[in-house]
Amino acid sequence: MSGFREKLLAASRRNDSLLCIGLDVDPRRVPPGLLESPGWIEAFNRGIVEATSDLVCAYKPNLAFYEALGLDGWEGLRRTLAAIPRDIPVIADAKRGDIGSTSEAYARALFEVLGFDATTLTPYVGLDGLEPFLRYDDRGLLILCKTSNPGSGDFQDLAVEWRGQRMPLYQAVAQRVVEWNGHRSGQCGLVVGATYPSQLKEIRALAPDLPILIPGVGAQSRSLEEAVRLGADQRGELAIVNVSRSIIYAGGGTDWQQAVRAEALRTVERMRLSLPGRGAS
Amino acid sequence: MSGFREKLLAASRRNDSLLCIGLDVDPRRVPPGLLESPGWIEAFNRGIVEATSDLVCAYKPNLAFYEALGLDGWEGLRRTLAAIPRDIPVIADAKRGDIGSTSEAYARALFEVLGFDATTLTPYVGLDGLEPFLRYDDRGLLILCKTSNPGSGDFQDLAVEWRGQRMPLYQAVAQRVVEWNGHRSGQCGLVVGATYPSQLKEIRALAPDLPILIPGVGAQSRSLEEAVRLGADQRGELAIVNVSRSIIYAGGGTDWQQAVRAEALRTVERMRLSLPGRGAS
Repeated sequence: MSGFREKLLAASRRNDSLLCIGLDVDPRRVPPGLLESPGWIEAFNRGIVEATSDLVCAYKPNLAFYEALGLDGWEGLRRTLAAIPRDIPVIADAKRGDIGSTSEAYARALFEVLGFDATTLTPYVGLDGLEPFLRYDDRGLLILCKTSNPGSGDFQDLAVEWRGQRMPLYQAVAQRVVEWNGHRSGQCGLVVGATYPSQLKEIRALAPDLPILIPGVGAQSRSLEEAVRLGADQRGELAIVNVSRSIIYAGGGTDWQQAVRAEALRTVERMRLSLPGRGAS
Repeated sequence: MSGFREKLLAASRRNDSLLCIGLDVDPRRVPPGLLESPGWIEAFNRGIVEATSDLVCAYKPNLAFYEALGLDGWEGLRRTLAAIPRDIPVIADAKRGDIGSTSEAYARALFEVLGFDATTLTPYVGLDGLEPFLRYDDRGLLILCKTSNPGSGDFQDLAVEWRGQRMPLYQAVAQRVVEWNGHRSGQCGLVVGATYPSQLKEIRALAPDLPILIPGVGAQSRSLEEAVRLGADQRGELAIVNVSRSIIYAGGGTDWQQAVRAEALRTVERMRLSLPGRGAS
């Protein structure tokens, strides 16, 4: 059975891309005209997927944006998943993290009811809380390590003692997940914000073989190139660099799909040029 | 405007109760006959609420169980909320924890779309990620501190250095939330598992004025009495002791509502007797 990691690598190689597009629907920002149809969520996402499915390694709907739209959001999310080609992995940005039978129910919701290939998870509860997700052995678990927000240091940067060594909490999380992954079939990955490049570099060194999902790339900033350069593994793979708004809301007219494609192409070209041996140095 | 804390205290005093009933719907366990109706989620929960609304301080649906039922689950959750009397606070056990615009969307989903009075949140991302929830100043935030699962020590028990002192991470979380709450209008509380009584005692000492949601009470164990004794504040209030399955699945026949009421009553009586000055010593 092919798992999340294999599906990710296959899509990434086929499309020569480390770009993940975040499908964060916002009724205030979709192109004019779309909102009038009751199926606007699916129509918008389907338009993005049609324009970009040869340019990405993954798609990532953030569940919060769908939950905020109530029942229409959930129905739109279900239909969006059906519209994505099966050979492109789809990551639920759900940041779930609960225990026991509750985690079982979340895993069932995300992997069976909705059919995602992977989900983001938060580690605070401890790894036994994440076990029910692991039981779906063809699915991926991307665990928050160092998040992109300004306040991520509140707890993640606290100095902890772990196996007799002093390190920031996020490093202990990374090492624990690497170990845990070693005992399993390679289902785990980490989430590290592009806003913390030196931490991204450290975490890649601690987890040389894990997929790293990298959110927080600013539309205009240098962070895109850094995310690729510091986040990819030694073969220039296994970074999943997420870009949402600057691509999905690139167009405001009737030709919005062309604008989305053009921006996705520009983004993926910049990313390709950032990899060692690929750019102009 | 009356907030979550006031609503909680009012319900708790009116019903002389620290009991929160967890509405964790499971199609495999609901009484026979109910499942045949398409509105079974609402019917089951409404039956519980009718049988117990004079015995509780709060209700707590765990969102995972509804998400696992797909669209029917979300519709059932919406209708369940409408069936709960407005003077009893309803806590979303959602354990959300994300950043920026995503947290805004989760807060909108939970507080506006669904209309919960409070939600559980996970602190790993840092407190700025929880800010969007605080903006709803009549709603409560219950932040995971020490969870009830066997593996909760993986990260929560790591020794951290915080303000020059060494302490387990969960204590740093408790102190940080107490400070944060001090700057606000008293919207915050903590979540501490009944399975860790000595930690519950420590955390109550660190947070004398905060509501503490206490899950993990075993149906037959001594933990119910301990949860009340160690979790309540000095006035015997502000503990929200959650019990789910042993109450909501107490009955298997057509008289299931009577069985639910009887078990809830037994539970709340045991809790009343556990408070200092109320029991037989």
